[in-house]
Amino acid sequence: MSLVQERRNTRRLSVGKVVVGDGQPVAVQSMTNTQTGDVTATLAQIHRLEAAGCEIVRVAVPDMEAALSLAQICPKINIPVIADIHFDYRLAVASVESGADGLRINPGNIGEPWKIREVVNSAAQRGVSIRIGVNAGSLDREIVKRLGPTPAAMVESAVENIRMLEDLGFNDIKVSLKASDVARTVAAYRLIGQRTDVPLHVGVTEAGGLFAGITKSAIGIGMLLSEGIGDTIRVSLTRDPVEEVRTAWEILRALGLRSRGPEIISCPTCGRCRIDLFTVAEQVEAELINCPLDIKVAIMGCVVNGPGEAKEADIGIAGGDGFGILFKKGKVVRKIDQHDLVRVLLGEIENLKINSGGK
Amino acid sequence: MSLVQERRNTRRLSVGKVVVGDGQPVAVQSMTNTQTGDVTATLAQIHRLEAAGCEIVRVAVPDMEAALSLAQICPKINIPVIADIHFDYRLAVASVESGADGLRINPGNIGEPWKIREVVNSAAQRGVSIRIGVNAGSLDREIVKRLGPTPAAMVESAVENIRMLEDLGFNDIKVSLKASDVARTVAAYRLIGQRTDVPLHVGVTEAGGLFAGITKSAIGIGMLLSEGIGDTIRVSLTRDPVEEVRTAWEILRALGLRSRGPEIISCPTCGRCRIDLFTVAEQVEAELINCPLDIKVAIMGCVVNGPGEAKEADIGIAGGDGFGILFKKGKVVRKIDQHDLVRVLLGEIENLKINSGGK
Repeated sequence: MSLVQERRNTRRLSVGKVVVGDGQPVAVQSMTNTQTGDVTATLAQIHRLEAAGCEIVRVAVPDMEAALSLAQICPKINIPVIADIHFDYRLAVASVESGADGLRINPGNIGEPWKIREVVNSAAQRGVSIRIGVNAGSLDREIVKRLGPTPAAMVESAVENIRMLEDLGFNDIKVSLKASDVARTVAAYRLIGQRTDVPLHVGVTEAGGLFAGITKSAIGIGMLLSEGIGDTIRVSLTRDPVEEVRTAWEILRALGLRSRGPEIISCPTCGRCRIDLFTVAEQVEAELINCPLDIKVAIMGCVVNGPGEAKEADIGIAGGDGFGILFKKGKVVRKIDQHDLVRVLLGEIENLKINSGGK
Repeated sequence: MSLVQERRNTRRLSVGKVVVGDGQPVAVQSMTNTQTGDVTATLAQIHRLEAAGCEIVRVAVPDMEAALSLAQICPKINIPVIADIHFDYRLAVASVESGADGLRINPGNIGEPWKIREVVNSAAQRGVSIRIGVNAGSLDREIVKRLGPTPAAMVESAVENIRMLEDLGFNDIKVSLKASDVARTVAAYRLIGQRTDVPLHVGVTEAGGLFAGITKSAIGIGMLLSEGIGDTIRVSLTRDPVEEVRTAWEILRALGLRSRGPEIISCPTCGRCRIDLFTVAEQVEAELINCPLDIKVAIMGCVVNGPGEAKEADIGIAGGDGFGILFKKGKVVRKIDQHDLVRVLLGEIENLKINSGGK
């Protein structure tokens, strides 16, 4: 069962080997926070992001050292890189020449038309796509004066920028329209969806830490994806970017759009629970973080209600008083000593893995 | 700017002093996970929940000891208590007599009509409301046989149960329709919204731990509230219930429905950031957790983009190379040594508090 309406029709473009738009799966994106010029640190972070399921990575290119370091970074990673450029067109050109698969610019802050033309020519030559990143906090003054920092202003800025690139014969364009509040973000994306067939990169910017950041991203990205809007997504958290990727996958899974590894359902516990379920759930979650099986695992606090309430789960455990049970598809398989709950569950999942051909 | 369509018309009822439905603010609910019979532990947890903004608390009543302990718990807390009952009507009656403000039952598992009548009579006598808690995992077998564990089955079960209570002349009813997946949850609530004017308690059950749990709850509850559906909410996490309350408030805030204390926006940092913004953001968040001011606080990684991108913030800091800046409404107020960033920001917010009359 999916929550998602028919996806919006968008043109197709490539970010390196990742095809975006035109009904392709919604791609998960994140951004490094290392100094891009520090190649070792940046590579290490990108490898961790890849392992977590990141499919496109953006890196900041604030100076020429960062741009040139892409020549060392890009060949050593498996996902496409988008260079994030502000102000200086030469950094964009150097990034493209160093192997970036995409650029993220705000044409408005690149300057004179000939500079934009330089960037576009260089991108076109190498088959590099460009994301126009509109941010409610950095809109053109003239537009803000006329419209305020509103969704309409964000959309107008985006449409102007799209036209600027298209007038130069460049069409491999993605657009993002981010604001730090969910309401404006959602309103802006809904509006632009009616104005262009350019693929949309969706996210809520400066969303905050764990609780605020996940909540705002899940509601904003979730609502938009459910309306069929969004071709790539980025969860923005003031946290390790690996957690952004993890949250992005949870959003895609919750909507029934894509899944990655086991889904863990676990109860919040109540006065009926006699075991430390929080620790059990965290242990299982940590152990399964790279498990490839597309299964539903239940971790329930109570032997009486657990197996029934979690009958959709392929496998699960429920805690009792000193002992627990293992169940599959709602049927109790056997009683287990409480201390063995995690070990037994993981062993059973390991068997499933072997039976599925070790995939 | 609010994301919320007009709220659904619902009848009004009381859960103790909290009025629910009929356009009243969406109330935040949680559930203890202590042994309810352990009065000291339960009181301590409810007090922590109250401090976090919990407005209605549910407790499990699995036995008579738990039911009777409500007589000691209810007088010592400031929020209404809902007793969660399964199977045994006597526990419901004893809970009401011990001072519970609400009951949560699944009439289907209480048994014969005369037992349900006993519960209803006792609730009616004391002005206690009843929540009918339908759970996709514990539906009546006959309904599941006919309809499967579908949203339609959940709704049919709820409607039957509502009728059962209304036939006894009892109308102070709330309903919940929880499934462990977002799609079915949302579909079920949308359906029942068209069938009854009973207030709805909204949540996704067994949502999981931090990432999955917040994500699923934010999308499910968020989408429903945005459509005007939902009178009380509960985020279900396999975590300290205080975190459920925190997430619930983040959802209400993200939707522009209600706010509680400062909103912190903070950037995810990128290769431009030269300070440990994650730690700074966490420190500020922890310090402000009980701050009553309804302000927007920005914590940004970069002096160049920070103040502009966060110009909607009432106050903010941005990190630089060894130093940072304090800004208000996008205007730089002054430079600060990097080590003083948090202290200066908190001091300024303290001043705002004093100027606002210490509210």
